[in-house]
Order: sequence, then structure tokens, then C-alpha cells
Amino acid sequence: MTYKQLRVTRTSPALWRVAFDAPPINLIGPQMVVELRELLDELESDPLVSVVIFESAIEDYFLAHWDIAADPELVNSLPKGPTGYHPWLDILIRLSKVPAITISAIRGRARGAGSEFVLATDIRFASREKAVLGQFEVGTGAVPGGGTPSRLPRLVGRGRALEILVSASDYDGELAERYGYVNRALPDAELSDFVTTFAERVSKFDLRAVQEVKAFVNAVSLAPDEEFPPQMDAFWASARRPETQDRAGQLFAQGLQQASETELNLGDTLGRIEVPEQPPRAR
Amino acid sequence: MTYKQLRVTRTSPALWRVAFDAPPINLIGPQMVVELRELLDELESDPLVSVVIFESAIEDYFLAHWDIAADPELVNSLPKGPTGYHPWLDILIRLSKVPAITISAIRGRARGAGSEFVLATDIRFASREKAVLGQFEVGTGAVPGGGTPSRLPRLVGRGRALEILVSASDYDGELAERYGYVNRALPDAELSDFVTTFAERVSKFDLRAVQEVKAFVNAVSLAPDEEFPPQMDAFWASARRPETQDRAGQLFAQGLQQASETELNLGDTLGRIEVPEQPPRAR
Amino acid sequence: MTYKQLRVTRTSPALWRVAFDAPPINLIGPQMVVELRELLDELESDPLVSVVIFESAIEDYFLAHWDIAADPELVNSLPKGPTGYHPWLDILIRLSKVPAITISAIRGRARGAGSEFVLATDIRFASREKAVLGQFEVGTGAVPGGGTPSRLPRLVGRGRALEILVSASDYDGELAERYGYVNRALPDAELSDFVTTFAERVSKFDLRAVQEVKAFVNAVSLAPDEEFPPQMDAFWASARRPETQDRAGQLFAQGLQQASETELNLGDTLGRIEVPEQPPRAR
Repeated sequence: MTYKQLRVTRTSPALWRVAFDAPPINLIGPQMVVELRELLDELESDPLVSVVIFESAIEDYFLAHWDIAADPELVNSLPKGPTGYHPWLDILIRLSKVPAITISAIRGRARGAGSEFVLATDIRFASREKAVLGQFEVGTGAVPGGGTPSRLPRLVGRGRALEILVSASDYDGELAERYGYVNRALPDAELSDFVTTFAERVSKFDLRAVQEVKAFVNAVSLAPDEEFPPQMDAFWASARRPETQDRAGQLFAQGLQQASETELNLGDTLGRIEVPEQPPRAR
Repeated sequence: MTYKQLRVTRTSPALWRVAFDAPPINLIGPQMVVELRELLDELESDPLVSVVIFESAIEDYFLAHWDIAADPELVNSLPKGPTGYHPWLDILIRLSKVPAITISAIRGRARGAGSEFVLATDIRFASREKAVLGQFEVGTGAVPGGGTPSRLPRLVGRGRALEILVSASDYDGELAERYGYVNRALPDAELSDFVTTFAERVSKFDLRAVQEVKAFVNAVSLAPDEEFPPQMDAFWASARRPETQDRAGQLFAQGLQQASETELNLGDTLGRIEVPEQPPRAR
Repeated sequence: MTYKQLRVTRTSPALWRVAFDAPPINLIGPQMVVELRELLDELESDPLVSVVIFESAIEDYFLAHWDIAADPELVNSLPKGPTGYHPWLDILIRLSKVPAITISAIRGRARGAGSEFVLATDIRFASREKAVLGQFEVGTGAVPGGGTPSRLPRLVGRGRALEILVSASDYDGELAERYGYVNRALPDAELSDFVTTFAERVSKFDLRAVQEVKAFVNAVSLAPDEEFPPQMDAFWASARRPETQDRAGQLFAQGLQQASETELNLGDTLGRIEVPEQPPRAR
């Protein structure tokens, strides 16, 4: 397979770098999904890879979010992966379990499915000045479907997880570190060297020890797989509601999914869109 | 019902503010318990409320603590609530599960049952200069009975939870944030605007999405209900001990339950009271 | 029993201080293991002890790490303790469950089994300038066997736990506090007074309340005992590999287990040792 949206560099047999390169803003669309599945197949079968760095080749965006303009059937109709779940869940569950250590080097926006991706990696290092994390879905009327209601409370506690999820706000690197959303925020000028040095170090250690430690940690810290599908179902159900469509329509009119002020400052934008006329009354 | 100790303001159908107003120090006594039960009935049945802010109308005190001078029978003899547990446990368990997002805007003291209350809400924002949190019970010889041994380790980890519980010390806003006891500490001058802006934002989002996200987070982060009653039993048993009565007597003589230096600096006071003559020897 | 490597001081019946005194660097060897078992017997049976401070009598080292030059049979052949597990696991499991509150006052290095020890105590206070924590095992090719893959994710979350474990790096007091690895880092000049004041305060409280609170917190926060033995088995298996022996040999040649630059800066040293010629290929 030739990757089109992933730049995969094998710095050594043990250390791989994967840069997201889907201009203009690194949306997670059907092509990205197909390539991530292929990458996971490689990571699961390669006998030597021990550390993988995920980073962005695009200024201002790590992974913007899910491509909600793409026909959902393009992803939904893909052959089932090993878990049997929706392809995005399948990718995230497998990602957390690959034998190699996965590191997100977050510079730019990682919202929605982008945040779900970094939460499914093992270690998150963020640019203090340029990282922006968030789960913006509730601001559009949708329920985040890629596992954050399961992963985030285990990482940052119930209070901060609920705040992040229901506020749909942007969290910069510094606040994300204070909350435990990322391991550590580093000055942007130091991030790349820090991550490379860290990854090279680990990649020289005995990969059997690295893998065994990860397996032990996974056994006590991962959410059970079966927690995830109801959340994905809730996402699709909530995304289909007229009020969610209304809000999404407003956002598209303001530049959603383009390199735009709306994408740069999506957290703020969500606080300013018009509330649909028919507020929900059901409980 | 007309609330006497709660000031309930419906800023909008989706956003309610509840200010504790039980001078002089916002003790949690029988009347407060009755009113909180009534409020929960409203929150559980109202179809539109999406966000609730809890705050204080009293300078220096958010919720001082349980009113230990009141006749316990006034609360114990109340009709059973939905959980069938002690009314205070019933209130806290229901509070964590109401569909709306609950926010504590903590300015002043929130100790003992006051701390238990904020830990049962979803999100805690604290005044950096004026918030004081703590579980002072062990300093009197009593076991905290309202669930903190269950809720706090899940929020801040075993080490910090044990420190907070056995030290019976005061934690200011800044340290409470570092420990994860609160989501965030804000400069006192900014707290009210921050909380209002946050709550208004969330209240304009689709309440179905807000509620569904909360339900998913609750499913993985709340303590099982059955953990709580043994802790409440331990509270009553420990509160009846002569040595606990001795310590409480000393505290009352020094101004406990009044607007006093003792209440303002209860953590320090506990370190200075006389140790009862008969130290406990049983194990 | 006369302790040779533990200095046990009963400041009062309720407050004990235990200083590690095994020059030159407080290695955890067979004698230390025997003495810690004896100490646990005392702590489990003494009816009055309520608080125990663990500290170091040795400059620069709290507990360096396991003595890997000692014949493993000296420990393995000790009579089984109450849990029936390996003596080191037995010590750590019992330590977390003793009725008294245990406090680590960390000044100097606490790596490997030294870190495992402090993680099994209840509360960790660290010198901001002089504490160094870490799990260096993976840097030698070994899997940490004393429970950190179980205890650390529950304390600091999956991401930071994996980082600490696979990086084998040194964590100073300040970073350890930001990660939640320790409760709090204090200026070195204040650490001793702070810990003493804290411990004296708690030691004057009703020990029944202290013990009951600890039991409630333990019930919801300790890892199940049965998680630990597979990790210890993985340690021994990984320690026997030729590549681990190679790395350990290099470290001994550079001063491992002596008062040396290598021990002072073990995290850095691990990044510079030669990678064994036969990299592992099995998965």
C-alpha cells in the first residue's frame, strides 16, 4: 500500500514516525481511516517496531476532527476489522493495544476524533503554545462517539472529564497538562527535539520489556472494549437530529472543514452560533 | 414549596442558580436537607433544566459542614428517599445522577459535608483566594460518612485522598487544583463571570447531548451506591464515642458552628485541641 | 530483633520514624528485606502506632533500588509471608494494608524497588531539589516486578504511567508532583519540618478513625493482590535474558551499586549504554 495521507518514516527498525498529511487541515475522512487500518496491520505484525511517533505535517492542525461532510457509508461499508466494531472504534481499540509504544506529538488542533486519537495513544506530549485539544461535539448537539467518555474520566477524573466534554471548549497545552489531558506541555521550540530524544531512547531498550510493561499497564487501565459501541451509536443518533444538522449547517457556512478562523477557534465559534428554534424537550 | 435556605433562580429554563443562604455560616441542618431533597425532586423531573450552578450567598462560607448540634432524629426520621439510604447519602447519590450538569462555584469554606456536597456535583470551580476545602472529621475522631473515601480516591488518587482525609487539614483553592480536588482555581475577581459564562454556554447546547454524555461518564466513573452506607454507619458509630464528644465539646467552646475564628480556621484549630485522656487502644 | 539497616525511633507510641541506613546507597538487599518483614510484623500487631514516617539516613539516596548483585536465593528461600507471594511482593502488599498511615519523606534517589516501596506507602512528600524517582528497569531490559504497573496507572493515569515505566527516566520532585507520582514536592529546607508537623498532627487524632478511613480508601483504591505475581515472574524472566545481563554488566563496570556518578544519574546513564548485539526479535 502507498500511503497518501500518512507519511511513514522508519527512522530505524524500532522507531517509526507517522506524520498526518491531509491538507488543508488533516480531517479524518474515509481515506485516512483506510490508511490507519493499514498502518495498524503493519504495527501489529512487524516484529521490530517498538516506538511510534504520531505528528502532523500540517501547520496549525494535528488532526482537525472527523470529516462530517464525507458520506458515512464510505466508512461504514468497510470490511469489519478484528473487533467487529465500527471502523473508527476498531482503529482506536487496536491502537491502544499495539505492542509498540505510541506517542502523540501534538502541535495544532486535535479536536473531536483528533482528540479521540491522541487519547488512544499511549503518551501525549503537547506544544505549550500551539497545541489545542477539545471535544467539540456537544457544541454541535452530538455525543462524542470515539470513546472519550470512557477514556477521559480514567485519565483526568470525572470532574475534569465532564467539564471538557460538555463545554466543548478548546484546551491549550498548558491547561491540558494541568488537567492530565496530556502527559506534559513543552515549549514549542523544544517539542520536536524532546519527543525525538525520548523516542530514540525507548527504541534502544529491549522491546520485549517495553511490550511486557505495556501489556501489564493495559490490563489495569484500558476500558473494556464493550463500553465503546453504545457511545458510537449515540453519536450517529445525535448527529442525525435536525438541531444538530442546523448547527452543523451554520458552522459550514462559517468555514467549517476549511482552513478558516472558524476551525482555528472552533471552541469560541460554538459559543456564538444560533440556537435552533425548536429546543429539545424530551428527556 | 418555598425555599428558605436555598435561593433558586431560573436564569433561563435551562440554567438554574442555587445559592445557599443559611446564615451565619451555611450549616447543613435538617431544613437544608429537606430543601435539597425538594430541589432534587425538581431537578429530576424538570424537562428543560440543563445546567445548575451552586454558590453561596454568605461571605466566607460555601457550606460550612453538617450541623452536629441538631437532633440527628430530625434527619434520620425523614421518609426514605429513592435509594432507601440515609437522607444525606440519598441526596448525594441522586445529585451525581441528575440529568443536568451541576457546577459548584466554591467561594468560602466547604468542609465535611460541604466538601462531600461539592464532590457529588459534576464540576468544581474554586476561588483561588477564598475557597477552603477539607474533610475535618478525622480531626474530631469521626469518619467522614458522606462518601469521600469513595469519591476522592477516584478523583485524586489514593495518596492525595488519604492525605486529605487523615490530615483533616484545610486546602486552599490553589492546592485543591494541584491535587485535582477541584477542576480549576480562578482569581476570586474572575470566578463569578467565569462560571456564569461557562454555564450559559453549556445551557445553550442541546440538552440531550449534555445528558447522554453525562450518563456515559457516570457509567464508568461513579462509585457503586452500595459503597456508601457502611461509611455512613462508621460516621455515626465514631461520632458517638466519648473521645469524639470530648473533642467536639472543646470545639463548641471555641466557637464551632458560629461565625468565628474557629470556623474560619478549623484546620488549624483541630491541631491545637486537647487530646482526650483515654486514648483509644482497641484495634 | 535488632535492626541493622533500619533506624526505628518511637517518637511517641503513636508516631514511629523509620530511617533507612544501609550505606553507601541504601540498596534493598536480603538484610533489608528481613528487617522490613520484621517491621511489618510489628506494625501489624502494635495496638498504638498510628503514623509511620519512612526517611533516609543516607545523603543522596532514599532507597537506591534492589540489590541485584546479591544471590536471589537469599530472598527467594525466606519462609513465605502471609500472602504466600515472593517476599518483596509480600512486603509491599502488607505495607499498603497496615492499619497505620505510612508516609514517605523522599530525599535522594528512590528508583526501581525504591520507587515501588514509596508507591506502596500511603502518602509521598518529596524534596523539590533532592528527590529523584524512577523505574529504571526497562532501561536494563527488565520488567519492573514490584507492582508499579498496577499502582502507578491508578495514581497518575495510563499515559503518565507508561511514560515513566518505558522511559526509565529520572523524575525530580517538581515533575513528580505535577504527574501525581508524589503528593507534593516541598523545598528541601522545609521538608523535614513539614513532614514532622504533619505526622505529629495525625498521630494525635483518634487512631480508630484514622484506621477506618484508611480501610475504606483501601477498599476502593488498592489493586487486587493477584495482579502482582505475574509481574514479579516477568521481572525474573526478563532479568535472566542475556541482553539484560549484558546491560547490567556495563552498568556494574560504570559503578552501579556504588556511590557513583552512575547511581546519581542513572536515568542519563541508561541512555548511553551500548545496545547488546543481538537485538530481540521475538514477539
